[in-house]
Amino acid sequence: MAIITLLTDFGQQEPFVGVMKGVMLTLADPSTRIVDLSHDIPPQDVRSAAFWLAQSYKYFPPGTIHVCVVDPGVGSSRRILVAHSPTQCLLAPDNGVLTHVLAADELVVRQVDAFERAEPGTTFDGRDVFAPLAARLACGEGPEDLGPVVQDWEALRVPIPREKEGHVAGEVEVIDRFGNLITNIEATRRARRVSIFDQSIPWVSCYSDVPTGQLMALRNAWGRVEIALRDGSARHALGCPVGSRVAVEFDDSLKPPA
Amino acid sequence: MAIITLLTDFGQQEPFVGVMKGVMLTLADPSTRIVDLSHDIPPQDVRSAAFWLAQSYKYFPPGTIHVCVVDPGVGSSRRILVAHSPTQCLLAPDNGVLTHVLAADELVVRQVDAFERAEPGTTFDGRDVFAPLAARLACGEGPEDLGPVVQDWEALRVPIPREKEGHVAGEVEVIDRFGNLITNIEATRRARRVSIFDQSIPWVSCYSDVPTGQLMALRNAWGRVEIALRDGSARHALGCPVGSRVAVEFDDSLKPPA
Amino acid sequence: MAIITLLTDFGQQEPFVGVMKGVMLTLADPSTRIVDLSHDIPPQDVRSAAFWLAQSYKYFPPGTIHVCVVDPGVGSSRRILVAHSPTQCLLAPDNGVLTHVLAADELVVRQVDAFERAEPGTTFDGRDVFAPLAARLACGEGPEDLGPVVQDWEALRVPIPREKEGHVAGEVEVIDRFGNLITNIEATRRARRVSIFDQSIPWVSCYSDVPTGQLMALRNAWGRVEIALRDGSARHALGCPVGSRVAVEFDDSLKPPA
Repeated sequence: MAIITLLTDFGQQEPFVGVMKGVMLTLADPSTRIVDLSHDIPPQDVRSAAFWLAQSYKYFPPGTIHVCVVDPGVGSSRRILVAHSPTQCLLAPDNGVLTHVLAADELVVRQVDAFERAEPGTTFDGRDVFAPLAARLACGEGPEDLGPVVQDWEALRVPIPREKEGHVAGEVEVIDRFGNLITNIEATRRARRVSIFDQSIPWVSCYSDVPTGQLMALRNAWGRVEIALRDGSARHALGCPVGSRVAVEFDDSLKPPA
Repeated sequence: MAIITLLTDFGQQEPFVGVMKGVMLTLADPSTRIVDLSHDIPPQDVRSAAFWLAQSYKYFPPGTIHVCVVDPGVGSSRRILVAHSPTQCLLAPDNGVLTHVLAADELVVRQVDAFERAEPGTTFDGRDVFAPLAARLACGEGPEDLGPVVQDWEALRVPIPREKEGHVAGEVEVIDRFGNLITNIEATRRARRVSIFDQSIPWVSCYSDVPTGQLMALRNAWGRVEIALRDGSARHALGCPVGSRVAVEFDDSLKPPA
Repeated sequence: MAIITLLTDFGQQEPFVGVMKGVMLTLADPSTRIVDLSHDIPPQDVRSAAFWLAQSYKYFPPGTIHVCVVDPGVGSSRRILVAHSPTQCLLAPDNGVLTHVLAADELVVRQVDAFERAEPGTTFDGRDVFAPLAARLACGEGPEDLGPVVQDWEALRVPIPREKEGHVAGEVEVIDRFGNLITNIEATRRARRVSIFDQSIPWVSCYSDVPTGQLMALRNAWGRVEIALRDGSARHALGCPVGSRVAVEFDDSLKPPA
């Protein structure tokens, strides 16, 4: 029984996603499982989609087919990629949305050219291209049949935290709907000090460690340093957007001389 | 394995839809597939529901049971209809929500009278009437058993575009959550000129044909003339509501003498 | 074929729920059905979750596993409970979210101690604890194996309506997304008079009994007295929050002497 996941920015007001599922259930075995990762990625926000895709796909059983349609270039000549290994398979436009997945995992990347749009000039490749491709993969067709291996693909410029003697300088990478600020800094160990906008944030181990309304920093569910506000939104409290600088001093750091 | 689709205005905050699914999975075979088309139709917006139902249902496998519960008259004496052909089956209140489906497809329409509400005066026919009826259809009961054929049913007044020598006068029929203005004009061919509110909009073949922030008109995923804004909302840019007049001059039109 | 329902406050923007499903489909039989009750419970609103869980779970087939993760105390030492009977099974944090279910149904309550978090200090027990536990139950493990029976658990203070000679004094318990005010008063019979904020609201049997813009009171889908506004929001019209006093005089009441 095949599993297909969907990650899009189509929203849930119009039945765009439902129509994709109709196409997949028509072309693939109707027992195919389709799981929604999210359809509320902010419109055309490839960066958020790339982050969440990389956090999510590894929790699914081997053989799951992951389809990401956050695709501002739909209808242009941008390519469609399939990235695969013996246990993983992802379909996505070539716009950088696979950046984090390809950085973390050894995958073969192919340019999908074995498909035809029913009509040219269409604006709904989710329905017309991605859903049929996912159905073919769900029916057992191998990704090798979809097109040739490529070595060049679009990659997002991902800010890499700079570390020096336990002091790490990074930034807010993504903000979730609770207003939690997720940084690009791996929380490999306890921090002694976390600061953002010259404000020092205490390190805790879980959200309930501080009283309502208080800021905290912690190792979040994805292993990152995160700044949160108990029972509220750190984004609103601090007013800092994605890209804001965050400094972390880890516990095993050598304290610099005064 | 039966497939049931759901289109409602119940929203997703309360578990109304989940409860409908519980009822269906209790009464029908638990392998029944239930696919969400949308539950975020604006409350009681029969016109939007009618549009999206007609765009969506044809993408599902033959035999799929489509259930639409956008039903401002719930609890009144409004009838429930089943519309069916050998390959299609739709359940909906008799409030015009089937207008576009019945205009496009040859379906037999029946007034459903073979059901009992557990209690009178209830306000949740999705759970108490539609879900049990869908489950019965999913279990193999024929729509013929649900009630007599009727010839009269509620229909929405649908504005028909007027065409004269390649000039078509239509209007904005639906606005999607991206703020794209979907007109009632079929984009059977390229347009030479699209105008709304005395503003001329360039014709393109896909969203990425223009730079960020620019308006465009194109043939959308549903075959309609649509006015969009690259990486933004045409609704906000133009401020035009549903019903705004749109004029299209198609490419093969005879240009009228000056 | 097992059925698992999910009720959370995770929202739908990030793939938190999708990841939980990935874990469950990895650990349980991939034919397991997973049904969303809601993921848009207001963040950390245990009271709303408790209300809607109790309204929903009884509509599912016997044997369904209900998982509620509205859990402001995640990561603290708060316990995890499984409440079960031969036909029901619910997993939830020990924070009062089971209050209404346990008041209505004879269930055995156990403190779940037979699990291990992969890492301490995590903040996503939905993925790391609840999903694996639900998968084990879906695979046939009995709730008896999860931990010892307990008699003490967190319960919400639930306001009980006071009744005297057919006059009932209650309050608004929950407000749904339509702005309907759901009271804690059972609508066991017709009301003669419903009042809120000194305003008398007419009793009707369904929403369409009054014209657009008019307030009404009725027996709602959950058997409660509800105050609604035709085609609008009673919350906005009346401005009354959860907890506002509501008085109902039922039809069979003895009218007190003047």
